Formats: sequence, structure tokens, C-alpha cells
Amino acid sequence: MVGVGVMGADHAARLAHRVAGAALVAVSDPDMGRAAAVASAFAGVRVVASPLALIADSGVDAVLLASPGSAHEEQVLACLSFGKPVLCEKPLTLSAASSLRLVAAERALGRRLVQVGFMRRFDPSYTRLQSSLSSIGRLLVLHNVHRNVSAPASFRSEMIVRDSLVHEVDVARWLFADEIASVSVLAGLSSRSAPSGVRDPLVAVFRMAGGGIVTTEVFINSQTGYEVRCEAVGERGSLFVDAPRPLPADFLSRFASAYDLEVQAWVSSCVEGRAAGPGVWDGYAATTASEAGVRSLQNGGEPVAVETPS
Amino acid sequence: MVGVGVMGADHAARLAHRVAGAALVAVSDPDMGRAAAVASAFAGVRVVASPLALIADSGVDAVLLASPGSAHEEQVLACLSFGKPVLCEKPLTLSAASSLRLVAAERALGRRLVQVGFMRRFDPSYTRLQSSLSSIGRLLVLHNVHRNVSAPASFRSEMIVRDSLVHEVDVARWLFADEIASVSVLAGLSSRSAPSGVRDPLVAVFRMAGGGIVTTEVFINSQTGYEVRCEAVGERGSLFVDAPRPLPADFLSRFASAYDLEVQAWVSSCVEGRAAGPGVWDGYAATTASEAGVRSLQNGGEPVAVETPS
Amino acid sequence: MVGVGVMGADHAARLAHRVAGAALVAVSDPDMGRAAAVASAFAGVRVVASPLALIADSGVDAVLLASPGSAHEEQVLACLSFGKPVLCEKPLTLSAASSLRLVAAERALGRRLVQVGFMRRFDPSYTRLQSSLSSIGRLLVLHNVHRNVSAPASFRSEMIVRDSLVHEVDVARWLFADEIASVSVLAGLSSRSAPSGVRDPLVAVFRMAGGGIVTTEVFINSQTGYEVRCEAVGERGSLFVDAPRPLPADFLSRFASAYDLEVQAWVSSCVEGRAAGPGVWDGYAATTASEAGVRSLQNGGEPVAVETPS
Amino acid sequence: MVGVGVMGADHAARLAHRVAGAALVAVSDPDMGRAAAVASAFAGVRVVASPLALIADSGVDAVLLASPGSAHEEQVLACLSFGKPVLCEKPLTLSAASSLRLVAAERALGRRLVQVGFMRRFDPSYTRLQSSLSSIGRLLVLHNVHRNVSAPASFRSEMIVRDSLVHEVDVARWLFADEIASVSVLAGLSSRSAPSGVRDPLVAVFRMAGGGIVTTEVFINSQTGYEVRCEAVGERGSLFVDAPRPLPADFLSRFASAYDLEVQAWVSSCVEGRAAGPGVWDGYAATTASEAGVRSLQNGGEPVAVETPS
Ligand SMILES: [Mg+2]
Ligand SMILES: [Mg+2]
Ligand SMILES: [Mg+2]
Ligand SMILES: [Mg+2]
Repeated sequence: MVGVGVMGADHAARLAHRVAGAALVAVSDPDMGRAAAVASAFAGVRVVASPLALIADSGVDAVLLASPGSAHEEQVLACLSFGKPVLCEKPLTLSAASSLRLVAAERALGRRLVQVGFMRRFDPSYTRLQSSLSSIGRLLVLHNVHRNVSAPASFRSEMIVRDSLVHEVDVARWLFADEIASVSVLAGLSSRSAPSGVRDPLVAVFRMAGGGIVTTEVFINSQTGYEVRCEAVGERGSLFVDAPRPLPADFLSRFASAYDLEVQAWVSSCVEGRAAGPGVWDGYAATTASEAGVRSLQNGGEPVAVETPS
Repeated sequence: MVGVGVMGADHAARLAHRVAGAALVAVSDPDMGRAAAVASAFAGVRVVASPLALIADSGVDAVLLASPGSAHEEQVLACLSFGKPVLCEKPLTLSAASSLRLVAAERALGRRLVQVGFMRRFDPSYTRLQSSLSSIGRLLVLHNVHRNVSAPASFRSEMIVRDSLVHEVDVARWLFADEIASVSVLAGLSSRSAPSGVRDPLVAVFRMAGGGIVTTEVFINSQTGYEVRCEAVGERGSLFVDAPRPLPADFLSRFASAYDLEVQAWVSSCVEGRAAGPGVWDGYAATTASEAGVRSLQNGGEPVAVETPS
Repeated sequence: MVGVGVMGADHAARLAHRVAGAALVAVSDPDMGRAAAVASAFAGVRVVASPLALIADSGVDAVLLASPGSAHEEQVLACLSFGKPVLCEKPLTLSAASSLRLVAAERALGRRLVQVGFMRRFDPSYTRLQSSLSSIGRLLVLHNVHRNVSAPASFRSEMIVRDSLVHEVDVARWLFADEIASVSVLAGLSSRSAPSGVRDPLVAVFRMAGGGIVTTEVFINSQTGYEVRCEAVGERGSLFVDAPRPLPADFLSRFASAYDLEVQAWVSSCVEGRAAGPGVWDGYAATTASEAGVRSLQNGGEPVAVETPS
Repeated sequence: MVGVGVMGADHAARLAHRVAGAALVAVSDPDMGRAAAVASAFAGVRVVASPLALIADSGVDAVLLASPGSAHEEQVLACLSFGKPVLCEKPLTLSAASSLRLVAAERALGRRLVQVGFMRRFDPSYTRLQSSLSSIGRLLVLHNVHRNVSAPASFRSEMIVRDSLVHEVDVARWLFADEIASVSVLAGLSSRSAPSGVRDPLVAVFRMAGGGIVTTEVFINSQTGYEVRCEAVGERGSLFVDAPRPLPADFLSRFASAYDLEVQAWVSSCVEGRAAGPGVWDGYAATTASEAGVRSLQNGGEPVAVETPS
């Protein structure tokens, strides 16, 4: 494992205690004390000083990256160069160009090695909705709500797009089985609970290549609870993913099962030598949509086309 | 009463049987047979051939207009010229210029005589939400869903904006206590249940003058039921108007109480010589927003500014 | 009108301002000041010192009784003796024997003059459920929840049965179109918000003559809001009456439309010379079930058979 | 693993593929073909002809029993005699006397080795409710709904109590942290979808030793979906476990996460040499309540006291 912040520490416990077929053998983190603390919490886990050394380590068969997005390109490329499967937390990288280099590198290798951490594709309520879509005819519109209690003061408006809204980007692509053609991100009244200068909530509108429309409210300082909802509107009815009540405190609690199933699917796919779940292309497509979203936000919400090469 | 189509016939029964302080004395409709049928269903109701004769009739103290929107300007002006209170069904008129003439005419008169039929302002679930708004801090975002089972083949996309979406136009203005600054109306995939050439569903986005954002899905051939929902998102939580389950068949059933309370409030205000409820300005402002919405729909969904003089 | 407490004052405004075909002409209340205050709020309303004088008054065509249950027998009998229609608030009377005398008196008269104030039969959400029952096959089980924020200190456990649970007694009889065969009323842990000695909440179980089962929680000091819910379970699905959110403050707010429709139906039936809504037999049957419920509560919750003559 | 029917086969895949720290090494089932099929689906799994031989096998460290309840006593006793941890599916056994022998045997051993398969204690929505109980003051009443689409023709009314209602028995004991004092099981109208002679739905009422009251509807031929709901009513509000929509097809789908977490907790507790989750006493207490419930059902629903020694 590379990166043992909040998400990484949660994944470490998952790999060690709740997933079949894996053994957590080594962790790496720029904060060596944090790495040592996580390593000592489990039996037989080494601390490796450098992420690249960890990736190269012959005792490491596969790599889970929970490092910051800015570090992902170099680390994923290293995994690919060693032919090691990697589960990379979202976002894949912070720029479309960078993500595209990863797509090219994996393509050159000739086999899938990268899974991207869009865990909602494994959440039981989302998979239930997805597998029921045929019951409502063609999917026409998607409505999403994505609220957090509060965000750290360092969380800027652009990060709301790249780190929060990116989940709905992937959900939209997955449920429509289609690419996003354009993105608008509107900032209106901001809550006085948001840090100065942060536009929150945001309302995003995606237009899918095939015509579908997606609305999303992202509100990361909602003061209430972690509330993720989705309504899929088809020609003959609509389906819901509702938020559990009382609202969970955060995403780790709400999506605990999704993370378990995601990491288990990844470990099982490593053992069986095949790839599973959303891949590097999904990560790249999400990055292009996020980039369009950030540009739209900076330009007063006007629609920005998503440039995706085929 | 002028106009005894579906809505008018419903109001006739309301005036005759469910409202205090009023007596239904005369009806008028271009379809004389329909007028005669409604008149004969109640005691003491005359059929008057011309709407303007009915308005002028000295036995008529106040007028309820359930005629088509295209007839409203002339009929409302006639009511004003006779100094008679009028409840005019939405939309007030079909063009902003026309609605503005009514604003000017009432203003010249120096007193309010016109109430516009935005019945949701009287619906118990909407009024409960409105009166609870202070509990969630400043209102930031509104999400609406407005679905009908199916619409007549004659119902065009523009009418979805003018006749259906206009309810959310008024709800937005009422709940935000603010004017709408711009409107986008997006057409994406259309349901195969919609008549050929009709874009349905539509997704509209309003930006309020003070910054609030409003999303609305209007879907008039949803095949399911009459489903109207509203979520008001504030700084400290959100409030809902949910659709009753099982879904009602149509608006007459869903909003029966709202219509009763609306018409009662109007009759009581006539008796007491004061005006109540949404007025001619509200009707005018809604018309300007509808006009912007129609233009946006024709221009691929781009935001169109609403020009409202002060 | 006889009785102008909270319920009566609400009905007075309804008769004066929201109902077609009626004029409020006289009120009577043991508290003469209260009666005078209500009378002066409306035009042309006299205060009559004695309820029986009011009923006998030749200017009074029909009587709405919102007096205490203990006064109902004498007052309903007076209405019957003068052949005047009467809308009697629930409970009809406080004992089965007393209610039975009213059944006999109306039967002797040979025509229906009594409507009993079970307003839920007029509530749009209840009538929607009732009219949808055929969609779920035979009705098998009913679950009810009936919660008030808080009750006056004078409200005893027996009154919870007679005044609150009686609504579910009538709902059960109405939805099943059947009589109640036995009643259990269980008292368990009481909330520390209930006055000393008051058992609250209560859980009641009715067994219908035809086999149906009804569960009801009544909780009059729930501290949250006025929350009335009903689930009807049939052979092919279930239907709900849900509580509006945010929860209304009290029954006057929750059931405002129901009361309007109830009183309007009564006034219209008076004008047309026919009876409508739940009648004296329904009031009697409810009283017998309440009596069984009180006895069950006093006997530790054991089932008590309801003795209803045919 | 002993028993590879529907539940057992599901657990086999779980142990093999989704749980950390365990290796599935051997299976046993009276149906040798079924056992062979399951064994061959995984690497390195032997078929052992007799359950007792499997339990005695030195290569087996811990045993998961998904055999019929009638076989549990002998098999659990065998596990205890070999000092091996055992996860025994519910019901623990079919009689209170039998369950009590298991309590005594484990007590004689001086340490906990038995976990009983009440998986709802591990379900995220139930654990969220349980951990939020302090927010609603003292728990007063619990309402449960437990519906299956349909049951095999062999499923008798008594089995509805022993195999279905037993989950609510455990939920009630867990949420109240209290024992059940008495049980009533009422049969009313039966659905025509239930096999001849089977009383379905049933309505059960538990009275807890400390006064709490629990209502449960169990309806195993509801024709709709797998619908499990729970409402916990406290002094200051109520909390819900709602059913996901669209309704899941069956318990394996609804409780997949709960089973994963349950089996993982068991495996982790085996590795760490301590016991976790509901134990043999919980299984015994549930059996005594089920026995009372069956007797109540046979006696027309009268309350039957649960005899639990201390
Ligand atoms: Mg993720
Ligand atoms: Mg209207
Ligand atoms: Mg009433
Ligand atoms: Mg289990």
C-alpha cells in the first residue's frame, strides 16, 4: 500500500482483516511516523521508505495506491513497468494529459493492470439500481445529490469538482454506458458555513453523448450528514438510491460495504490474473470531465465540451 | 365563470358546492353545449353567450376565468374596466408584452383586482414547506420534479414550458421571494411515449437574481402517475414536498385541496374587498420567465436572461 | 354550533368562511365569554345561552356539536326530536348503552339525521388508499401509528383510548368494511414525558370479525410532531398513508382539508335532504370497541370481545 | 463447513472468496453430489462423508454449520468436545431443552466457542440504528415487518415462527438489551397465495421483561419482494431500518453485506482466540421465545410466557 491517510488506513485494515486472498506486506507514506503506526497495527507489515521502492519490491505482488492524485501518474507507471496490478484511488490523475499517458502505457503493455477506485460501482444499492434499469425502459435523466457534513478549510471549489463530483461523473458514465459530452458547473449562493472564497453548493449539469441529461448537487458543507442519493428516470418509471436514515457521518461509513466489495473484487482479479471493475479509460474519461467542470466553474457555469479521443 | 373545460368544470363544482360566500350565477363558453351542460348541473345558473357580456352582467360580482390563455388579456381588461375582481387561471397571458399591459391597467386603477391561479401557493404541503423555511437557514437551491402520466397529442414542447413548467417558475419566485434572472431549458433524449417531434422530458435551470439555483425536470408522458416533488436546500438542512403514494392520476386529484383553498381565499377576498394570493405582477413575471424558457429551448438550452422591468 | 373550544372554534371559522351552502347563525357554550368571542368574530351570529334552546331555535336548520362527549346523548336526542340534521364530533357518546339509545332513536325516526365526526374518511390520503384497496387483493392486516407531540396533564390513559385510538377504530371498520371482534390494549414502558400515572404509548391489537388484524401504536407525548401513518397489507402488496414531513404541529393542521371536506359533505347533505358519511351506527360501533379497549387496558392487555348487537 | 444447501453454498463462496484469514478446506453434506459440486468449485477443498468426521478432522480449525436445525445439537457438542470454534446458523436447535444442553456444555468448558448466525446484528443499517438509539431516549416500542416473496410448499406455519420470526426475536433482545417475557402469535386472514393450511401472514407481539413492546408482521408469501423493516420508537423520536427499493429478491441479496461482516467477524475472532457476536445463550433465549410463539399460535394467539432460567 502506498499512502496511509484516512482512506489508506481504512484500506489497510480492509486488506488485513476483511478481504480473502490478500496479505498486507508493506506500506509507504511520506509521513514515516504514520506509516510506522499503520504497519505496527498489523502483523508482518514492513515500512518501505519510498513508494517506488515498494512498488519494485519483489515481495509485493500488487499495489493499492491511496496516495494524493498528484503522485498517481509516476506510481501507476511504475506498477505498469513491473507488470503489477494496481488499484488506484480516484482521481486517476489531476490532468487529462497525464491520465492519457496512463491509458497509452497500459495499452502498450497489451493487458489491463489498472483498476480505478470508483467504489460506487460496487455499492449494493447502486448495483441493484443498475441491474434494474431494464425495467424502466431507456434511461433518460439522472438526478444526483451528494452532500458532506463539512470539509476541511483547505478544500477549494475546484476540489469539489475533482474529488467529490468525480463520483457522479463515473456514475453517469456507468449507468448510461455512455460518454459525457459537456459539463456545466454552476455556483450560486454559497452557504455561510463554507470557508471564505469557496463556492458551495455547486449544481452541475452533464449532457451525455447520446443525449441523456444528468443533474447533480454537490454540497460539502451541508451541516447535516453524509447524504448521497440518485434517481434514474426512464421511459416507464424511475429508480432510486436513497440515503440511509439517520444519515451516516461520512463516506467511510456509508460506503463501507462498497469498499469491501471493491477491494475484494480487485484482490480476486489479481489472484485470477484478469482485470475487473472500472479501468484506466474510466479514470481518464472522468479526468477529462472534471477538467471541463473546473473550466465551466471558472467561466460562470457555461457548458464546456469534454474532449475525449476515441 | 368563463370557460368550462376540464379545469373550468372542476371550478364550477367548487364554487357551487365547496366554497363559502359565493353563488355561481352564470357561465360562458364558446362550446355552448358544454356551457349548457354545466349550467344545468347546478341550480340558478344562466348561460351567457359572450364572455364580455358575462363580465358586464350586473348580476355578476366577480369573475373566474378558466378560458384559454390566448383569451385572457381581453377578458381581464374587461373585468378591470368594470372594477370586478377576477381569478385568472395560469398562464396570465401568452406574451410578456400582453401581461405587462395588464400590470399597467391594474396599476392605473389604483387597486388590486386580479388574482392569478397559481394554486400551489395554497397547497398544504407547499405552505408547510414555505412556513418551515426559516428552520434551514438561507435557501440556496431548489430541486423540482413535475411528471404527468401522458399529455394530449396536441401538447407541444413549448406548451410544456408555458403550461407545466410555469408552476415551478412561480414556486421558485415564491419560495426564494426573488425574481428569476435567467432560464435554461434543456431537451435531451425524448421518451418514445412522447408524440413525434415533442421533446419530453425537459430539464430546466433557473438562476435567481439573488444567486439561488433551481433545477426542474418536467416529464409530461412519464407513464407512471402525476408526480410533483420539491426539495428546498438550505444552509442547515433540506425540506421536502413529496408525492403521495400511490401516485394520484392527475393534477385535479393531487391539488384538489389547493384549488379549494385558492378559490375560497379568492371568494373571501372579494367579499372583504381586498386582494389575496399571487397577483398580476406574479403572472407577468411568470410569463417573462416562460418566454425566456421557450427561447432557450429553441436555442439548444443556452441560458436566456429574463427581462423584467422594475 | 354547540361547543366552541379548540375544535369548535375551528369548525366555526370553517362554517363561516370555507363551506358552501351554510350560514353560521348561533353558537352556544357553557363558557359564555368564549361563545361571545366566537360570535363576535363573524357577522350575524347570535349567542344562545342553552344548547337545547339553540337546537330548538327555529332559525337553526342543522346543528354541529363540538361539545364534550358527555353532553352528546342529550343534545343528539334533542336534534332528533326536532328532526334537525346533526354533525356530532367523535366520540358519539361515552358508553355503548348511551350510543345504542341514539341508534334506536334515529331508527324510530325512520331516516338518517346523524353524521359522526370521523374526519379521516374524508382525508385525501386516506380516501386515496381506500379507493386503491382493490389493487392489492384482499386486505389482510392494517398497521397504524398515531402520535401527538404532547397532551394536557388532564389527559388520562382511558382518554387515549376513547379520544385518540377511536380514530383507528373507525379507520379499521371502514377499510375492512367489517366489525371489530376483539380489542387488546397493551401498556408497556411509559415515556417519562407522560404525566405521572399515564400509560403512554399504548399498543392496541384489533381482530376483525372476518379475521383481519390491526395493530396501532398511540403515543400522545411523543415529543416530535403530529404523526399519523397507516399501512394496509393485502395479498398482493401494501399501501401507505404517510405523515407529511416536516411533521405538522397538530391534528388541526394535518387534517385541515379533511375537516373542510367533512363539513362540506355534511352541509351539502343537509341541503339535499340526505345523509352522508359515517353515521350513528358507526359511532355506536366505535364506542363499543373503545369500551372493550378501556377494559382491556385495565386488565393488563388481555383481549376483550366487542359486544355488538345486530 | 457442514451443510451446503442454499445458505451453505453462499457461505462457502464467502469463506473462499470474500473473507480474510480463512481457508475453506473441507465440506460435508448428506447429499454427497451437492457436497462434491461445491468442493470442486474451489481449490483444495475435500469432501468428508460424515459431519462428525469433518469436525474431528485435524486439518479443520473451525466449523461453520449450515446444516438443518435438527442436526445442530450433536454437531455443536462435537465442536465443543474438540475445542473448536463454531458458527452455527439459526435456529441454534429446535427445542429449548436441547439449546440449554449446549449452554451447559459451553459453560462447563469455561470459554466461549459458539457464535449463532443472527446476521442482522452485523447489517450496516441495523448497526447504525442500534448505535443511534441513545439519541431517542429510552427505547419503548419496536415495530417490525418481515416479508418474503413466497415460500416452498413445505414451509408450515410453525416454521414461520422458528425460521423467520426468530430474527425479530433476536433483534428485539439485542435492541432492548433485555429478555422477552411473553409472546403472542396471531393468525388472522391468510393470503390465498399461501399453501393450504398455512396461516400467513402472522402478527406477533412480544412483551419484554422490562416492559418494552414489540410488534412484528411476518408474511412469507407476500408476492412483492423481500421486505424487512424496523422502527424503534423512543421517548424523543423514532429510528428506521427501511427496505431498499426496488425490493431485493431475497435475504441473500438483502443481507449479503451482513453475512460478509458476520463471517468475517467470526473468522477474525477464531484467529484471535476470542468469541464475538451473538452466542449460545442468545441462541437458547431465541429458541425459548420461538417455542412460546409456536404454542401461542396453536392456542389462538394467547400470550405465552417465555421460561428462561437465569
Ligand atoms: Mg473510491
Ligand atoms: Mg392553477
Ligand atoms: Mg373528527
Ligand atoms: Mg443468519
